[in-house]
Amino acid sequence: MSTPASWVPGSRGSGYDVDHLPYGVFGLRAEGPASRRRIGVRIGDHVLDLAAAVRHERWAGHVGGGTLNPLMAAGRATWDEVRRWLQATLVDHDSAAQHVSEHLVRLEDVVLHLPFDVADYVDFYCSLDHASNVGRLFRPDAEPLLPNWRHLPVAYHGRAGTVVVSGTDVVRPTGQRKAPDDPAPSYGLSTRLDVEAEVGFVVGTPSRLGEAVPTSAFADHVFGVVLLNDWSARDIQAWEYVPLGPFLGKSFATSVSAWVTPLAALEPARVPLPGQDPPPLPYLQVEEPAGYDLALEVEVDGEVVSRPPYRTTYWGPAQMLAHLTSNGASLRTGDLFASGTVSGPEREQVGSFLELSWGGREPWSLGGEERTFLRDGDEVVLRARAGTVSLGEVRGRILPPASRPRFVEFGKES
Amino acid sequence: MSTPASWVPGSRGSGYDVDHLPYGVFGLRAEGPASRRRIGVRIGDHVLDLAAAVRHERWAGHVGGGTLNPLMAAGRATWDEVRRWLQATLVDHDSAAQHVSEHLVRLEDVVLHLPFDVADYVDFYCSLDHASNVGRLFRPDAEPLLPNWRHLPVAYHGRAGTVVVSGTDVVRPTGQRKAPDDPAPSYGLSTRLDVEAEVGFVVGTPSRLGEAVPTSAFADHVFGVVLLNDWSARDIQAWEYVPLGPFLGKSFATSVSAWVTPLAALEPARVPLPGQDPPPLPYLQVEEPAGYDLALEVEVDGEVVSRPPYRTTYWGPAQMLAHLTSNGASLRTGDLFASGTVSGPEREQVGSFLELSWGGREPWSLGGEERTFLRDGDEVVLRARAGTVSLGEVRGRILPPASRPRFVEFGKES
Repeated sequence: MSTPASWVPGSRGSGYDVDHLPYGVFGLRAEGPASRRRIGVRIGDHVLDLAAAVRHERWAGHVGGGTLNPLMAAGRATWDEVRRWLQATLVDHDSAAQHVSEHLVRLEDVVLHLPFDVADYVDFYCSLDHASNVGRLFRPDAEPLLPNWRHLPVAYHGRAGTVVVSGTDVVRPTGQRKAPDDPAPSYGLSTRLDVEAEVGFVVGTPSRLGEAVPTSAFADHVFGVVLLNDWSARDIQAWEYVPLGPFLGKSFATSVSAWVTPLAALEPARVPLPGQDPPPLPYLQVEEPAGYDLALEVEVDGEVVSRPPYRTTYWGPAQMLAHLTSNGASLRTGDLFASGTVSGPEREQVGSFLELSWGGREPWSLGGEERTFLRDGDEVVLRARAGTVSLGEVRGRILPPASRPRFVEFGKES
Repeated sequence: MSTPASWVPGSRGSGYDVDHLPYGVFGLRAEGPASRRRIGVRIGDHVLDLAAAVRHERWAGHVGGGTLNPLMAAGRATWDEVRRWLQATLVDHDSAAQHVSEHLVRLEDVVLHLPFDVADYVDFYCSLDHASNVGRLFRPDAEPLLPNWRHLPVAYHGRAGTVVVSGTDVVRPTGQRKAPDDPAPSYGLSTRLDVEAEVGFVVGTPSRLGEAVPTSAFADHVFGVVLLNDWSARDIQAWEYVPLGPFLGKSFATSVSAWVTPLAALEPARVPLPGQDPPPLPYLQVEEPAGYDLALEVEVDGEVVSRPPYRTTYWGPAQMLAHLTSNGASLRTGDLFASGTVSGPEREQVGSFLELSWGGREPWSLGGEERTFLRDGDEVVLRARAGTVSLGEVRGRILPPASRPRFVEFGKES
């Protein structure tokens, strides 16, 4: 299914040709921070100002604001209609091009914002290799997988209010932690700051409270896909997480790509899931192919340190969605659910430094230096490709606390 | 500090006199479901239509919509100003009364809605008695409290999108569960449906990402207090919760009172925390009195079955807020954080049926019948008093699934 290339210069082979067309929200760099937010579609190294370019289409009212939520809420038929219009307009050189080309902005002239208002954020734990690695590290004398793991995609709610767009600096978090040998807990900067390379799914069409969404309705509800870095402070997490799960070890920041790849653009990347034993309960069964062949990369300071393969992930996204709603929990437009750390079976395929350094005990090498967890100043970039489609990158740099958080002890600053 | 009573008939001694004045959002019953949502202030058995009653006050622009969020976002100085205006207006019979009285609606003529848009919902685990009871039930051969419990207020993120207002029916959830003796998990209706009687705190003033909020800034950020029922499906929860915490066992519904009690109205109810051993780290230290003396009641089908005392709760709300932001996580207007189940030391003071029935093994009596968990048709009402102030009730009735959730197995309905 090869789509003709676009007339926009530089789109062919860029990862952002007319077979992709991801959505984002941008302002104009020249106008400064107050620049009005508009919906953009990326084509090559340009961004189409969608509201300015569209004229009399029925769906024009959904793309006039500064967030994708109204378009996402409009439902699959509208998503398909907008995509057909975009592909026709960006391929057909004669009719639309002259009108549309004046609404193309160079990528370097825009500032990208968080593309949608996040409703609830749920993080899963879908990679068998990641869960096994974590189990071996945290519970060395027990079975790596807990009894429920092969029966359901384990998940927890994360903090929606601290989801940030790619490019946002991440301040090294402080928190309470206690290493096993410490006599008592202490409060201070995290020294085991980590990444988690993940794939995120963005809900467009909501569902009603009390109604489960079957796996077969996945593409009716999910608008698109983002890359996601679920930054993790392992020392805070290890001390806090029993019995109610991760909280402050994760909630300081979660970065997502500025571009939301439409689910339709990943249709050619669908592959069967790697196989599930035992077979899942009926509500988790899927029509194959239910996986996606996305090749991820974790880059630190310009060097690729790992290549996690999403296609080896045990639980697929339609199963995540069906499980998430299996108790009748409703979906809202803007809900974000993520795969959990994507790790393949090999050491150079893991999606976290916890695994890459085997709990900090086996340093890895970066530019000739030994590394375990993140240092201040490190810049991490997650990338992914699916055939000719490049997902939007997720970039983040670690900053020391610019001003240490102030705490007041009995009225005096401490 | 006795405030004069209001001229509104029936306000004196009602729990809703001028020392209280909680905020809510209402429509007019006579206008049906499409009735415009307005901000109301409860006084006795009446609701003041605030936007209609106010004339030239500076803050009038914050109360013109159908949600409390703009007023909550306006900050403490505005909250105090609105409250002073309300108290003056509702006490002074001469000047304002004739204008204001025409904007009083009888409580029976309104429909109450969710009073604010929930941003993130965080549920804590602050009661020593509750945590100890749960520990004894779930881990009978180990120390009831996990090692971190006395060092930090343990918490997790819940689902903001399924927070519902008092009066909303709760459909019995379905889900995957496996009792210890079952050979394999199964999917079906929860048979261990429970309540959790909690106190919720509603954030008004936001904070910036990367900045911790000290305990001393609690009243600058927290707009008010609600009662909260964190409905829990214990069978789903017990199977899913390792290692990432509660998820579907909680996410099907969380009910809050329709009335948000201003923090200022609970000033007379402040009491010292019951005492913390060991002393908390500096960022969790508080200026006393940092607790609140709220007397809760759990009523089932018209019978009070438990009276949980909030004043015995180990971790106070200022500590919850400081811990929640101690890693730099930002607050948004509409963030809701709750105490976790409030249980006192006695069996008749527990805030869940898990404890009241000791894991289902020791039935309790209701109207002469033996009960453990919730039956279809049961109506649960949570109430609380603090001196002359009655917090808004939280009411919810358990319904069987009206239509069983549909699941599609390889394209066929199962």
